[in-house]
Amino acid sequence: MTSKPRGRQFFFNPGPTNIPDRVLGAMNRATLDFFSEEFLAIQRLVHAGVMRVLKTKQHLLMYAANGHGAWEAGFANVFAPGDTLLMLESGRFSASWTDMAQALGLKVETLRADWRLGVPTAAVAERLAKDKAHEIKGVLVVQNETSTGLTHPVAEIRKAIESVRHPALYLVDTISSLASMDFRMDEWGVDIAVGGSQKGLMMTTGLSFTGISERALELSKTGGMKRSYWNWAEMRSISPQRFPGTTPVHMFFGLEESLKLLEEEGLDAVFARHRRLGAATRAAVAHWGGGAKSGLTISADGLEGRVEGIELLCRDPARVSDTVTAIVLPDGHDANALRKIALDRFNLSLGGGLGPLAGRVFRIGHMGDLNEPMLLGALATVELAMTVAGIPHRAGGTEAAIAALSGR
Amino acid sequence: MTSKPRGRQFFFNPGPTNIPDRVLGAMNRATLDFFSEEFLAIQRLVHAGVMRVLKTKQHLLMYAANGHGAWEAGFANVFAPGDTLLMLESGRFSASWTDMAQALGLKVETLRADWRLGVPTAAVAERLAKDKAHEIKGVLVVQNETSTGLTHPVAEIRKAIESVRHPALYLVDTISSLASMDFRMDEWGVDIAVGGSQKGLMMTTGLSFTGISERALELSKTGGMKRSYWNWAEMRSISPQRFPGTTPVHMFFGLEESLKLLEEEGLDAVFARHRRLGAATRAAVAHWGGGAKSGLTISADGLEGRVEGIELLCRDPARVSDTVTAIVLPDGHDANALRKIALDRFNLSLGGGLGPLAGRVFRIGHMGDLNEPMLLGALATVELAMTVAGIPHRAGGTEAAIAALSGR
Amino acid sequence: MTSKPRGRQFFFNPGPTNIPDRVLGAMNRATLDFFSEEFLAIQRLVHAGVMRVLKTKQHLLMYAANGHGAWEAGFANVFAPGDTLLMLESGRFSASWTDMAQALGLKVETLRADWRLGVPTAAVAERLAKDKAHEIKGVLVVQNETSTGLTHPVAEIRKAIESVRHPALYLVDTISSLASMDFRMDEWGVDIAVGGSQKGLMMTTGLSFTGISERALELSKTGGMKRSYWNWAEMRSISPQRFPGTTPVHMFFGLEESLKLLEEEGLDAVFARHRRLGAATRAAVAHWGGGAKSGLTISADGLEGRVEGIELLCRDPARVSDTVTAIVLPDGHDANALRKIALDRFNLSLGGGLGPLAGRVFRIGHMGDLNEPMLLGALATVELAMTVAGIPHRAGGTEAAIAALSGR
Amino acid sequence: MTSKPRGRQFFFNPGPTNIPDRVLGAMNRATLDFFSEEFLAIQRLVHAGVMRVLKTKQHLLMYAANGHGAWEAGFANVFAPGDTLLMLESGRFSASWTDMAQALGLKVETLRADWRLGVPTAAVAERLAKDKAHEIKGVLVVQNETSTGLTHPVAEIRKAIESVRHPALYLVDTISSLASMDFRMDEWGVDIAVGGSQKGLMMTTGLSFTGISERALELSKTGGMKRSYWNWAEMRSISPQRFPGTTPVHMFFGLEESLKLLEEEGLDAVFARHRRLGAATRAAVAHWGGGAKSGLTISADGLEGRVEGIELLCRDPARVSDTVTAIVLPDGHDANALRKIALDRFNLSLGGGLGPLAGRVFRIGHMGDLNEPMLLGALATVELAMTVAGIPHRAGGTEAAIAALSGR
Repeated sequence: MTSKPRGRQFFFNPGPTNIPDRVLGAMNRATLDFFSEEFLAIQRLVHAGVMRVLKTKQHLLMYAANGHGAWEAGFANVFAPGDTLLMLESGRFSASWTDMAQALGLKVETLRADWRLGVPTAAVAERLAKDKAHEIKGVLVVQNETSTGLTHPVAEIRKAIESVRHPALYLVDTISSLASMDFRMDEWGVDIAVGGSQKGLMMTTGLSFTGISERALELSKTGGMKRSYWNWAEMRSISPQRFPGTTPVHMFFGLEESLKLLEEEGLDAVFARHRRLGAATRAAVAHWGGGAKSGLTISADGLEGRVEGIELLCRDPARVSDTVTAIVLPDGHDANALRKIALDRFNLSLGGGLGPLAGRVFRIGHMGDLNEPMLLGALATVELAMTVAGIPHRAGGTEAAIAALSGR
Repeated sequence: MTSKPRGRQFFFNPGPTNIPDRVLGAMNRATLDFFSEEFLAIQRLVHAGVMRVLKTKQHLLMYAANGHGAWEAGFANVFAPGDTLLMLESGRFSASWTDMAQALGLKVETLRADWRLGVPTAAVAERLAKDKAHEIKGVLVVQNETSTGLTHPVAEIRKAIESVRHPALYLVDTISSLASMDFRMDEWGVDIAVGGSQKGLMMTTGLSFTGISERALELSKTGGMKRSYWNWAEMRSISPQRFPGTTPVHMFFGLEESLKLLEEEGLDAVFARHRRLGAATRAAVAHWGGGAKSGLTISADGLEGRVEGIELLCRDPARVSDTVTAIVLPDGHDANALRKIALDRFNLSLGGGLGPLAGRVFRIGHMGDLNEPMLLGALATVELAMTVAGIPHRAGGTEAAIAALSGR
Repeated sequence: MTSKPRGRQFFFNPGPTNIPDRVLGAMNRATLDFFSEEFLAIQRLVHAGVMRVLKTKQHLLMYAANGHGAWEAGFANVFAPGDTLLMLESGRFSASWTDMAQALGLKVETLRADWRLGVPTAAVAERLAKDKAHEIKGVLVVQNETSTGLTHPVAEIRKAIESVRHPALYLVDTISSLASMDFRMDEWGVDIAVGGSQKGLMMTTGLSFTGISERALELSKTGGMKRSYWNWAEMRSISPQRFPGTTPVHMFFGLEESLKLLEEEGLDAVFARHRRLGAATRAAVAHWGGGAKSGLTISADGLEGRVEGIELLCRDPARVSDTVTAIVLPDGHDANALRKIALDRFNLSLGGGLGPLAGRVFRIGHMGDLNEPMLLGALATVELAMTVAGIPHRAGGTEAAIAALSGR
Repeated sequence: MTSKPRGRQFFFNPGPTNIPDRVLGAMNRATLDFFSEEFLAIQRLVHAGVMRVLKTKQHLLMYAANGHGAWEAGFANVFAPGDTLLMLESGRFSASWTDMAQALGLKVETLRADWRLGVPTAAVAERLAKDKAHEIKGVLVVQNETSTGLTHPVAEIRKAIESVRHPALYLVDTISSLASMDFRMDEWGVDIAVGGSQKGLMMTTGLSFTGISERALELSKTGGMKRSYWNWAEMRSISPQRFPGTTPVHMFFGLEESLKLLEEEGLDAVFARHRRLGAATRAAVAHWGGGAKSGLTISADGLEGRVEGIELLCRDPARVSDTVTAIVLPDGHDANALRKIALDRFNLSLGGGLGPLAGRVFRIGHMGDLNEPMLLGALATVELAMTVAGIPHRAGGTEAAIAALSGR
C-alpha cells in the first residue's frame, strides 16, 4: 500500500496521547510576555489546577522538560550521592528510574518482581522492617507501569511503610496515571509525585511537574545534590514559581484548556470513564484469547514459558491498569508485524513492547481524550488487523467490548 | 447524563462531513486581497482541481453559496419561466429541486418511483420518446440521493436519452457523490453537474459549483431568467471567474488542501475506499437484520407496509450508495430516540430520516474523510446504542463488517 | 526582490479585513450537525448578536452568500419587476446595486453626484416631493461607499423622506460600515439593511444578512419576484431561521467569536476607536499633501481637473469615512505602482482605485481588527513606499498621525 | 482604560518572539508516535536543518528544555567540578551562566566590563597568556547579550584564544543571535554553541540545542559530571538522537516549518533584513535623543553617571546588536511606566530592563518574524507612548527610521 491511508489516525499509544482540538486550538495563539499580568494570571490558574489534579495543598513545581526531567529534579533536590533508594520493580520505567538514580550517584536496591504481578505490598514492609539504621532514604513506586499495564497500590504501600514506622520519603510516578486514575497525594502520604503533560493531561510533551510534600521541601533546603536547572529554591523565589530561563508560555495556554476539559467533565467522571473503557478493552482481549492462561513469567532478563493464545500481560486482576493494556501474542507471532499492518493499512497506531517485550507484546493506550466509539473503533481494527495478519484469535472481541459497555 | 461526553465526536452525518485537520489548518490563515497574484494563483489551482474531479474539460463556475445556490444558478441560466423539466423522483432532494424549479416558474413533470427502488432507466426513455414536440427542456437526476442512500445510474440514463434522440439538457446532482463515487461529466454527457464543498470535498459549507457543458453555456448566452448573483456571463468576464462581490478566499484556502488530499490518495483509490467502507456498512446492517426483508414501500406521502426487522432502505443491490446508508427500524421503534442515545451517551452523530422518513430511518454517512477504524467505531457504537435502546437486532454486525473488510 | 518578504502581511484593504486569531481559531473545529441542539444554541446566539449590532428588534435573515447575495435577497422579496428604485449615487457600489436591480427587472432612477461629495440630502426630499404618484418604491443609499471613503447621513435622509411623507421603502447598504460606524436600523427607520461578514464583523467572506422592518416583511408576503434561494418566507419557517440547503456552520463558529470580541470592547468603544484611527489617517494624508486642494471632480465617466499634490478623495469633512480613506495621487503618478512596491517590498497590502479611479487612487482600509501600532505601521510604510516610488509628498505624515493619536 | 485594546498585539520583546502563523499552524496537528517512520523523517529533517543554521558538520543534540537546559547540558558533559571557566561579562546573561556554573561546582573567573562596551578582545588574549598551567578549561562568551543589545565578536575572540595557543574549550551563547545574525560554528572554532527555539527560530519555548565540536564530544566521553537527563552519550545511542523520555513531537512539527521559512528566505537575506531593521531602530533612537551622549557606565552593581537625553545603551558602534536595542531613558523617567502605557493603551509589548537596568531601560526586540511595517508600527507607537508619558524626546524618530529604510 503506497498511498497514505485516509481519515484520522487512531492514536492508541500510551503516550503521548490524543490531544483534544480545543487544547491544540488554545495553543494556536500569538505568544505573550511571560512577565505580563495577562500571562501570570494564566500561570496561576494552571498551577492551582494541577494541584487540584494531584489532590495536594502542599507544593508544586513545573519544569520545561518531560517526565524524565521531573524525576531528575525530584532526586536532585532531596537526595545526596550515596543515598539509598528502594525501588519496586514494575517494568521498563522502574528500570529507567533505577538507571537515572544510579547515574546521579544514588544506590538503588530493587525489590524484584515478575512484571506480570508486581511487588507484593508485604515485601515492602518486610524489607523496611529490616532497615533498622534507616539507610533507605526513599521508596519509589510507579503507580501505573506504562510498559506493562500493571498498577501498584499507592495507598496500601504507604500503609506498609507506616506499619514499620520507616522515615523514608515516598516517591510515586504518576506519569501515565495522573488525571486518568485516582491519585491523592496528600491523603496517601506521597512526598514526591511526578507527572507529565502528555498523558492524562492530554497535552503536548515538554512540561512536567513534581508535587512536593512539606517534608520533602524541608529536606531540599539543606540537602540534595549540586543543581541549577532543577533547583527548587530558585524556582520558588517568586510565586507561583520561576522557570530557569524563558517560561514555556504555550504549554500553559494548552494546559489551561485541558484542565478546563477535566473540570467540565469532573475528575470522578473521568476516572469512571477510564474504568469503563479499560474493562471493555480487557473483555475484548479475554474473548480473543478464549481463556488462555499460560505460565509465562517476565523479568528484565526476558520471558520464560510458552504462550499458546492471546492473553493479558497483567495477571493480577486487582492490579490491571485502566489506562494501558499490554497484550501478549502466542509464540511465533510478531507483535510488530501486527502493529505495522494496523498502522500502514488502517491508520491505527498501537504501542509496541518495550525492552524484553519487544515483538512479543503490543499495547493499547486508553487514557486521556477517549470515548466509546474511539475505543470500539480501535478494538475492532485490532481484530481486523489480527485477521489480516493471521494471528489466531477467537472472533468476537469487539462484541464482548460492546456487551461490557452496554452494561448487560 | 449531564456532562458532555469526552473524546472526539464521531460524525457520521451525510453532510456536512468530517473536515480533515489539514483542511481546517489551511483555512486558519490571515486573509488575502482577492485581486492579489498570490490569491489568484490559488484560485486557478482550485478551479483546475475541481474540473479534474468533475472530469470535465468544458466549463466550471463556483458560487459563494451552498449546493442549493448552485442549483438555482443552473436553472436560472438555461431555463426560462414556463420551460418543462423532467424530474426523476429519488427522495427528499429530488423533491427539493422540484420545489425550487417551480418557485422559479418552471413546470416540473415527475417520474414517480418507490424511494426504495428509484426510477427505472427504461421509464426515462419511454417518457422522452413520447415528447415528440421536445417540450421537455431538461432531465434532472440525483446521482446519490442523500436522504435514502439510493443511486441512479447516470451514464445509463444518458444512453436512454440518446436512444430516443431527445435534445433535453441533462442535469445531474452530484452533491453527495462527487469526489466519493465515480462521476464523469464529459464522458457521460452531463450538461449541468452540481456539487458542493461540504461532502466528498471534505470542506466547510458555503462554496458550490456547476460543471457546464458547451451546449448549456451556449444556451445561457441567449436564454435563462432575469438574474444577477447567479449570472454566468458576468462571472465569466474574467478568468478563471469573477465572484459577484467579495471572493470567499478562505474557502479556496481549504479547498486547495482538500484537493491535495484527494490527489495524494488518487481518485480511483478514493472511490475504492468508499466502496469498501460502504460494503462493510451494509454487511453490518444485513447481519443486524438477520435477513429481514419487508414489503415496505416509500413515497413522498409516507411509508406503507410492516417492518419486522432492521433493514436497508435501498432494495436494489445495484443502486446502493457507497456514501450514505439509510436503515429502517422495525415498527414501533423510534430512530430519533436511538440517535439521541448515540449522541448524548457516546458522542456519535448519526443522520435522521428526512420528510416522511423521520423517526423511521437513521442514516450513516460514510463519505469523505473516513477510514476503517472510524467506520468500525461508528458501527460498533450503533450496535451499542441499539442494545441500550432495546432495539431488537442480531448481535455481531460489527464482526460482519470486520469480516467484509478483511477480505475473507 | 525574489523572495517573499518576511513577517506578517499588513492588510489594509477595505474588505475582506483582518480576521482576529481568536475568530480564525474558533472556526478551526470539527463540524457539527446543523440540526443538533449544540449547533442551534450557537445559531440563536449569533442571530441575537447580529440584531444587537444592527440595533433592531424587528427581523434578521442570513444567507450563505456574500453581501451581493443579501442585496439580491432584499430586492427579490419586496420589489416586483418594473418597480422604480431611487438610487443615491456614491461610487462604485451604488453603481453595482443599480446594475443588479436592473438585471432583476427594476427601473432605477439615480440622483447623480460628484463622487467626492455625494448627494445632498435636500436633493432626496426634492425628488420625492415630485413623486406625487408614489411610483418610487424604494430609496437606496450606501452608508459608507467603500470605493471612495465617502459616507451618506442615513438618519438625515430618513428625515428627508419623512418630510415629504413619501411611502418608499428605505434601503441602506451597511456593508463597510456595520460594526465600525454607528448604525441604528430601528431608530433611523431603515426598512432593509444589508451587511456582510467580512468587514467590521472581522470574519471570512460568505455570510451576509438583511435587517428587515415589519413593513418590508409584510410587503414580502404578497410581493416580490419569483425566488427560491432568497425566499424569506421559506427561511422564516423555523426559528431563528432555516437556510436553503446546508447551514454554513463554520461561519457561525467564527461569527460567535467576533461578536464576543465586539461586545467585550463595547460597540461605542469600537466606534470611537474607528473615529480615532480614521482621523489619524486623514491627518497623515493632509500632511503629505501639504494642504493641496484641487478642483478635481469624479463621476462614473471619469475624473476631471488637474491634481498637483496628494489629497483626500472625499471633499466634504462632514462625510469622511472612518473605515476607508481613498487618496488621490498627483497627476502623472501611478497608484498601482505604489501599491506594488508596498506589497512586494514591504508586505503591505493596500486597496486600489475601482472603476474610473484605477491607477489614480489608493485606499487604506482601517476597519475591524485594528489598533494604533497597526495603523501607524501602515501609514509609515505608505510613506516609505512613496519615498521609494518617488511620489512627491511632504515627509512627516506619520508624525502627524502620532500627534493626532496623542491627543496633543 | 478598562477594556482590552483591540487588534493584534505588537510583540517587541527580545524573547520569546513572534511566532509566524505558519509555524503555529504546523503545531496544530494530532500527535504522532515518536518511534514511527513518519515522525522520524521529520526529526531527521529538523536535525539537519538546525545544523545548517549553526553552520556545523560536527554534532548537534537537542533537549526537551529551554536554553538554560542546553547550557546545563553543555557544562555537565565536558567539565568536572572544580574546573575553571573564563567568563566574558556582558550583562545579565553572562551573570546567569556564571551562577549556573558555580551551582554545578565550577570555578568562574570573570573578565569584568562596562555593560555598555563589553570585554575588549585583547583582554581575553592577555588573560589566557598568563594561564601557563592551562587551568582555564573553557572560555564562555555571549554573542548577543539580550539584556543590553551588545554583541561580542565571536570570530575575533577565537583568534585571540589561538594567538596564545590556549587549549580551553570555546563556548558561545547564540540564544538571541542564532538565525538572526551570522554565526559559523565550524569556521569560527566554537566547541559548544547553545541555542533555543524561541528567538530567531521563531518557535514556542521548550526546545534547545547544543552544537558540539569533535573535541568537546571526545572530552565528554571520559569527563563531565554525574548526569542523566543531559547525558550526551545516552542521547547519541541512536541517530539522529534519543530524548530521555518522550520526544516533544510538536516542537519538531513547528521547527520543521520555521526552518522552511528560513530557507525560503535564505539565511543571508534573513541576516540582511535584521541589519536593515536594526539600523532603522537605532536611527529612530538617535533622532529621539538628539545626539545625547552621557558618561553613564553600567555594571552588575548598578548605573553611574547622569543621563540627560534618550540614548542607546550600547556605546560601541561596532558592537550594536541587530536583534535587540536597549534604550536608556533620561534620569527621572520610568521605563516601566512607559512600557505600561505602550501595553495597556496601544497593545505594544516592549522588553524591560533586567537586573540593575530595571526602570532605567526598555528594550525593543527586533528579531525573528519581522518586517518594515511591523517595526515602523512599533517605533511610531513608542514615540506615541513617549508623548503620552511626557518623556522628553525630539519628535521625528519614526521619520528617521523611514529614511534609513528607504536607502536615501
